[in-house]
Amino acid sequence: MSYTAINLDQLKAQISDYWSPKIIGQMNDYQFKLAKALGEFVWHSHADTDEVFIILDGELIIEMRDGQVTLKKGEMFIVPKGIEHRPVASSECHLLLIEPAGTVNTGNAGGKLTVDADWI
Amino acid sequence: MSYTAINLDQLKAQISDYWSPKIIGQMNDYQFKLAKALGEFVWHSHADTDEVFIILDGELIIEMRDGQVTLKKGEMFIVPKGIEHRPVASSECHLLLIEPAGTVNTGNAGGKLTVDADWI
Repeated sequence: MSYTAINLDQLKAQISDYWSPKIIGQMNDYQFKLAKALGEFVWHSHADTDEVFIILDGELIIEMRDGQVTLKKGEMFIVPKGIEHRPVASSECHLLLIEPAGTVNTGNAGGKLTVDADWI
Repeated sequence: MSYTAINLDQLKAQISDYWSPKIIGQMNDYQFKLAKALGEFVWHSHADTDEVFIILDGELIIEMRDGQVTLKKGEMFIVPKGIEHRPVASSECHLLLIEPAGTVNTGNAGGKLTVDADWI
């Protein structure tokens, strides 16, 4: 049988829209999603789950109500469930998200930036 | 509050033993583990869970009974639950593993390469 590696660099080049994560893999009921970020996202939280960010290129700031963290390429951060956060990218940033299938990008906030994640 | 990024490069430099994953983060009941590989691991499977490999440096072959996949830096693979596999690294390889907390490195096989994963 032929097995294929999931190549993060090749797949991230296929992401066209900002803040619109695309699913690239599933482990049990968790999904791996690639996203491209630029500018400020909305403040939101995920009531039922932690959320993992791994930076593939560029730099992402994750603001929280009581502080923030700056993530560079090769760095990872776990936003605890229920914690309000806002991702901000001052220049284009590629990231890998890991979270349960069905997790909505805007969490509790909803609004116009809400998207359903499709597979690429 | 001060938040700290999890820097994969810095942490992987702290891994001394081959085939002995160290925990660097937890998302819900899943853990992120860094490991260093060289040579052949044991054939094994995980009856209850898929397992994700992301290659940080070097190259890892994952043999399965009916085929294999070669993973290079920046590539990812999801071994389905129940599938027998054997990781093989012809030269030193650093990788990130993602799997449920409590997943044993040697799965159903046990043996002398079995280790409890500690946090670093």
